Amino acid sequence: MAEDNFADRLLGAVEAKRSHVVVGLDPAYEMLPPEVRAAHPREAYDGEDQMKLACYRDFFGSLLDGLRPQAVAVKPQIAYFEALGSGGYALYMDVVGMAKERGYLVIADIKRGDIGSTAEAYAQAHLDVVGADAVTVNPYFGTDGLEPFFARTRAGGKGVFVLVKTSNPSSREIQDLLLSTGEPLYEQVADLVSAWGRDCVGVGGYQAVGAVVGGTHPEQGSALRKRMPRVPFLVPGYGAQGAQADDLRGLFDERGTGAVVNSARAILYAYRKRPGVHWLDAAREEAEEMRAALWRAAGRG
Amino acid sequence: MAEDNFADRLLGAVEAKRSHVVVGLDPAYEMLPPEVRAAHPREAYDGEDQMKLACYRDFFGSLLDGLRPQAVAVKPQIAYFEALGSGGYALYMDVVGMAKERGYLVIADIKRGDIGSTAEAYAQAHLDVVGADAVTVNPYFGTDGLEPFFARTRAGGKGVFVLVKTSNPSSREIQDLLLSTGEPLYEQVADLVSAWGRDCVGVGGYQAVGAVVGGTHPEQGSALRKRMPRVPFLVPGYGAQGAQADDLRGLFDERGTGAVVNSARAILYAYRKRPGVHWLDAAREEAEEMRAALWRAAGRG
Repeated sequence: MAEDNFADRLLGAVEAKRSHVVVGLDPAYEMLPPEVRAAHPREAYDGEDQMKLACYRDFFGSLLDGLRPQAVAVKPQIAYFEALGSGGYALYMDVVGMAKERGYLVIADIKRGDIGSTAEAYAQAHLDVVGADAVTVNPYFGTDGLEPFFARTRAGGKGVFVLVKTSNPSSREIQDLLLSTGEPLYEQVADLVSAWGRDCVGVGGYQAVGAVVGGTHPEQGSALRKRMPRVPFLVPGYGAQGAQADDLRGLFDERGTGAVVNSARAILYAYRKRPGVHWLDAAREEAEEMRAALWRAAGRG
Repeated sequence: MAEDNFADRLLGAVEAKRSHVVVGLDPAYEMLPPEVRAAHPREAYDGEDQMKLACYRDFFGSLLDGLRPQAVAVKPQIAYFEALGSGGYALYMDVVGMAKERGYLVIADIKRGDIGSTAEAYAQAHLDVVGADAVTVNPYFGTDGLEPFFARTRAGGKGVFVLVKTSNPSSREIQDLLLSTGEPLYEQVADLVSAWGRDCVGVGGYQAVGAVVGGTHPEQGSALRKRMPRVPFLVPGYGAQGAQADDLRGLFDERGTGAVVNSARAILYAYRKRPGVHWLDAAREEAEEMRAALWRAAGRG
C-alpha cells in the first residue's frame, strides 16, 4: 500500500488491525465515568470549563491508550470542543496530536463547506495546522468550494469524506428529493464524489475522496456501494443511532473492505451498560464486540 | 420593533443607520495595512501566529471603532480564525465581544450543519458561549439538524441564515439541480426556510430564520425575493466577488428593506485602491460609498 494515499493508509489499517472500527470522540461531561469526574473536583479548577477540559484530557488519554487494538481511526466531533470555547478548541488540537502519536488515523469531523477562498482557510486550519489525516465536508457549494480539500488528497496524503446520505431522520427532506432524472439528489452527489476522487485513487483501488453514508439506511447504502465502487465510506449511525452490524453488510465490497464504521457514545460510555466493569475495560469490550460483529458482517470472520 | 426578535433588531438597525451594509471580518495578514504590520514586528512576538493575532486584534479594534455609522452588522468568517489555531479561535470570540460592545449585530459566519445532538453543541458554542446574534447554517441535514438553532430564534432573540443560493460559480452543481417538480433544488430549500421561520416572525413582518442569497445571481435573487416574502436575506458576493449595487435592486422588498449585504476585503483593505489615504479613512469611504449605493438601489435615497 502506498504511504501517501489516504485510502491506502485507511484500508491498510483495516487489514492490519482486522477492524473497521472508528471511535468517535464526542465529549459529554454528564456521561463521563464517575471516577474520571471524581479525579477532577470542581474546587481544583478555575471554573467549570477548566474542570471539564481536564476531565476530557484525562479521559481521552486513557481511552486512546486502550483502544489501539480495536480502532483504526478516531473521529473527534469538533462541535463538542467548540462548545467549550477556545480552551475546547485547544483540546481538540491536542487530542488530534495525542491520537496521531498513538498511531491512529484521525478523521476530524468538521463538516465544513464554503466558497473557495474560505474553504482554503478551513483546509489549512484542519489538515495543515491541526494536522488531521482527513476531514468531513459538506457538498452544498459544489466543486470550487471543495477543491482546497481535494488538492490535499492529491499531494499530501490527506483524505476527505463528503456528506452523501446522512444518518438522521430529516436527511430525506433535501437529500432524497427526486431530481428530474428520476434519481434522488444524494445519488447525484454520489456521482460527483466519484468524479471528485478520480485523480487520487490509491494502489488498493480506492480514492482518497470518500463519502459519508449513514448506517441507518441499509438499502440506500447498499445501492450506493454499487454505484460508487472506488469510494471509501465513513459510516455513522452505528450503536446509539440504531444501526446494527448486520444492517451494514451491503456497505462493504466483495472483499469485505471499503467502509469504516463510527461509534462514539456506545463505546466511550459503555461502562453505563456494564455494571462492575472498569470504564476502560467496558469501552474495550464494546469496541471488540463491534469489531468482531463488523468483521463477520463484512464476510471476513 | 420588538427587542427580542432578530429580524426586528436587524431591520431596525437598517432604518436607524440608513444602511444595508454588513462588514465581513476576514483577516488576511498579507493584505493588512503596512502601518498595522509595522506596529507589530515579528521579533516582538513568540512566533508568527502570535504576531498575526496581535495585528488582527489591533486592526479589528480600530475598524470596529470607525465603521459604526455605516455598518449595521459585522460578519466574522470563522475559517480565517481557525487557520490560526486555538489563539485564532480565542480572537474570534474576542472580536465578537468587541463588536457587540460597540453596538453591532454579529452574524457569525460558521456555516455549520450536522445531526441534531451535534447541532445542539454548535448552537450552544456560537449563539450561547460566543454570544453571536446570528449564525449561518447549511441545510443539507434537514429540519432535525437545524432545530437547535431555530429554538434559539423563538426564545432568545437569535437569528439564523440558511444557505439557499450561494455566490460561488460551482453553486449551480447541486443548488440548481432540477427537481421532478420542475423547480431547481434551491427553490425547494427556499420553501423550507420559509416554513422553518413561521414561528419567529417579528412585528416588522420578517422572520428570524433568514436566507443566504448570493448577489452574483441577480435574476435568481429577485425570484427568491418574491418567493420568500417574509425571509430576510444575507447577501454575499458584493465587491470583490463581482456584484454591484444595481444588481441587487430585486433583492430588496417594495419598502427597500429585507436584505443586508456583506462586503469584506473591498472595505477592510480599501487603502490598496486609495493611495495616500489612511487605511481606516479608506475603509470608511468605501463603506459609505457602498451604503449610499445600496440605499439608492433599494429605492430609498
